[in-house]
Amino acid sequence: MRQSKLFTKTRKDAPADEVSRNAELLIRGGFIHKEMAGVYSYLPLGLRVLEKIGNIIREEMNKAGGQEVLLSSFHPKENWEKTGRWEAMTDLYKVSDSSGREVALGPTHEEIIVPILKNYISSHKDLPVAIYQIQNKFRMELRAKSGILRGREFMMKDMYSFHATEEDFEEFYNKMKDVYKTIFQRVGIGHLTYLTFASGGTFSKYSHEFQTITAMGEDTIYVDEEKGVAVNKEVLNSEVLKQLNLTKEKLAERKAIEVGNIFDLKTKYSKPFDLSFTDEKEQKHAILMGCYGIGLGRLMGTVVEVLSDDKGIIWPESIAPFQVHLLALGDDKEILGEAEKVYKSLLKAGVEVLFDDRAEVLAGEKFADADLLGIPFRVVVSARSMKESGVEIKKRTEEKGKVISLAELLKQIEP
Amino acid sequence: MRQSKLFTKTRKDAPADEVSRNAELLIRGGFIHKEMAGVYSYLPLGLRVLEKIGNIIREEMNKAGGQEVLLSSFHPKENWEKTGRWEAMTDLYKVSDSSGREVALGPTHEEIIVPILKNYISSHKDLPVAIYQIQNKFRMELRAKSGILRGREFMMKDMYSFHATEEDFEEFYNKMKDVYKTIFQRVGIGHLTYLTFASGGTFSKYSHEFQTITAMGEDTIYVDEEKGVAVNKEVLNSEVLKQLNLTKEKLAERKAIEVGNIFDLKTKYSKPFDLSFTDEKEQKHAILMGCYGIGLGRLMGTVVEVLSDDKGIIWPESIAPFQVHLLALGDDKEILGEAEKVYKSLLKAGVEVLFDDRAEVLAGEKFADADLLGIPFRVVVSARSMKESGVEIKKRTEEKGKVISLAELLKQIEP
Repeated sequence: MRQSKLFTKTRKDAPADEVSRNAELLIRGGFIHKEMAGVYSYLPLGLRVLEKIGNIIREEMNKAGGQEVLLSSFHPKENWEKTGRWEAMTDLYKVSDSSGREVALGPTHEEIIVPILKNYISSHKDLPVAIYQIQNKFRMELRAKSGILRGREFMMKDMYSFHATEEDFEEFYNKMKDVYKTIFQRVGIGHLTYLTFASGGTFSKYSHEFQTITAMGEDTIYVDEEKGVAVNKEVLNSEVLKQLNLTKEKLAERKAIEVGNIFDLKTKYSKPFDLSFTDEKEQKHAILMGCYGIGLGRLMGTVVEVLSDDKGIIWPESIAPFQVHLLALGDDKEILGEAEKVYKSLLKAGVEVLFDDRAEVLAGEKFADADLLGIPFRVVVSARSMKESGVEIKKRTEEKGKVISLAELLKQIEP
Repeated sequence: MRQSKLFTKTRKDAPADEVSRNAELLIRGGFIHKEMAGVYSYLPLGLRVLEKIGNIIREEMNKAGGQEVLLSSFHPKENWEKTGRWEAMTDLYKVSDSSGREVALGPTHEEIIVPILKNYISSHKDLPVAIYQIQNKFRMELRAKSGILRGREFMMKDMYSFHATEEDFEEFYNKMKDVYKTIFQRVGIGHLTYLTFASGGTFSKYSHEFQTITAMGEDTIYVDEEKGVAVNKEVLNSEVLKQLNLTKEKLAERKAIEVGNIFDLKTKYSKPFDLSFTDEKEQKHAILMGCYGIGLGRLMGTVVEVLSDDKGIIWPESIAPFQVHLLALGDDKEILGEAEKVYKSLLKAGVEVLFDDRAEVLAGEKFADADLLGIPFRVVVSARSMKESGVEIKKRTEEKGKVISLAELLKQIEP
């Protein structure tokens, strides 16, 4: 796309009340816009990143046998009363219509998916099933100061799985651990992300979180880097460590942010709705459930937190809004013509290009914008590059570029 | 996908309180689930249709130069007070958080997009701009009895355009008329959809709606079939008819449903937020705006209303959840083996196939399900088709199928 047509521009400053690094950089780059604390709109560049993250998650969910749905945001009050969460969940938004009838704004969807499944599942032959969606959630956050890491409104992938037996549940649950690792690898934070044992509440011994190490994280975890696992504070006791075969001395305390979690729900939600199946002997049992969440905005914000430098964002290729940021330097007709040629060649090769074709913008500003926006490859057409009959290519992570031919460029940047 | 794995099943009956034909068929087919009046969840088959509609709209919006965003559902109260709609819009949902701070749930996004643009637009050089999103909307409907045609929560494409001059606005507005016609053609209801002149309120002489003729429509329009235009009741007077070169005698009264609308907003929303630009002479002017809406669920429901028959839905190929419904009849191993072969051949050719591989389901039920689900091509592998060394192919709109070879099938059904 031509940058001269992109309606957003980079900004010198984020709003004064924006204290998080992720939102500051994303607002300055024109990726997002802050509507109020914890509420952000996604502008063209930001939406491209969000959708790439969504597509990676979707691919992995589909591979794992997930069936995609899109559940409602409005939830009947009766459903939430049935599970006791209408009163118990303090961060639930409640809305009244003109008749005074109340509904909840969904922060999670067990209260919706379980009643739906009652229409379709009755026998062990209908199991297992895994259902997911990528959908907007609402949660009444009191401390929404972490940019897109913690929103009152946020895009989330939530998957729910349904099983006849413990063994079947565990097999799927363990598979999801690997699926999640793959997702974090693919979005570029695998090397900083640890499967973390957390307290399981009343329903299971542990729950599992995926925590990404970053100085601004809200959580504290204890990491065994060799083994690639971590525990959180709640379970940092000798009994648990023994079970996990960890030694306290080898654990390093780190700040981290939770980028994903998986839960063993057992029959907590199937029982209130009487979601059950009959086995081979016509015996009725409550269905076992798991749930698996990833916040898309949180993932995007985490990438910005851990991969940026003092000049701006550094997007991994897998989720970058464009692969190439093509800069035409100067108003010289010959240079602009050559840049147009490079732009069209890249488009023809199927490469996603942001083409900084803006007239009246100086080279220094174009370079600064490129660093802030963080597109993986910067390609410059200038008087200098033309003298050498080529284009200058530089990775966002490199200090210096080098001039190569257009043919060589197309070879290096394959989509 | 294998139907034996699809978690939804067809149902004999929709809920007793479901009075609309579209929701009745869609619920029976397992496309959607009703949560409460005017609130539906989209299940796998329904989501596939919704996304195909969304992708058609997205393609056409992008072709028209639209830039896609994803704006927030929570809207600051201040923004709606600025336009006077916090009080004036009676179907606005209002939500309070624990501190008592109120926000609106967005039913439309002028109050969000205009303040965003204040950060980016200041000169005539920044114009024109067209921005759109496909996003969930909320509206406090009192009479939500039309299935997915009229929701309290509904997926909508809303585009906003911004212009320096009347001429530029009009050019774009007229282009959007053609874009909308293309969209309705592509989703299969072009032949029943009319550009309809409606009353323009206080801001322009007319507004334009797109109305699709159907007996269950809530609106009444007056159609000149030859000219391909219509007027609604509000503007059915001699003055307007003269201007539009229509004769009352040639107009046929029809029930119809509004599937899209386009508005000339002039400076109604730019003025309250002081969204303005400076022209070549450094003179400041308020920006002119247009807005352009299409409800995705409404479009899907309209297709069901106008294209179904007494046996079920008839999806156009462009938005069908799958192109081919492959039925294996009988438990015979040879038949199942042959059906598997056909399934894999179609998948390999890139065809979207729903494969009814369910054991223990009789032929009659499979045929009835195929008619209800409405996938364009039904392909049957049975003892009979195998005797003729082929498969039976039948369009959903045809009475009788014919047996053809697998090679011929692949030729006929190209993706």
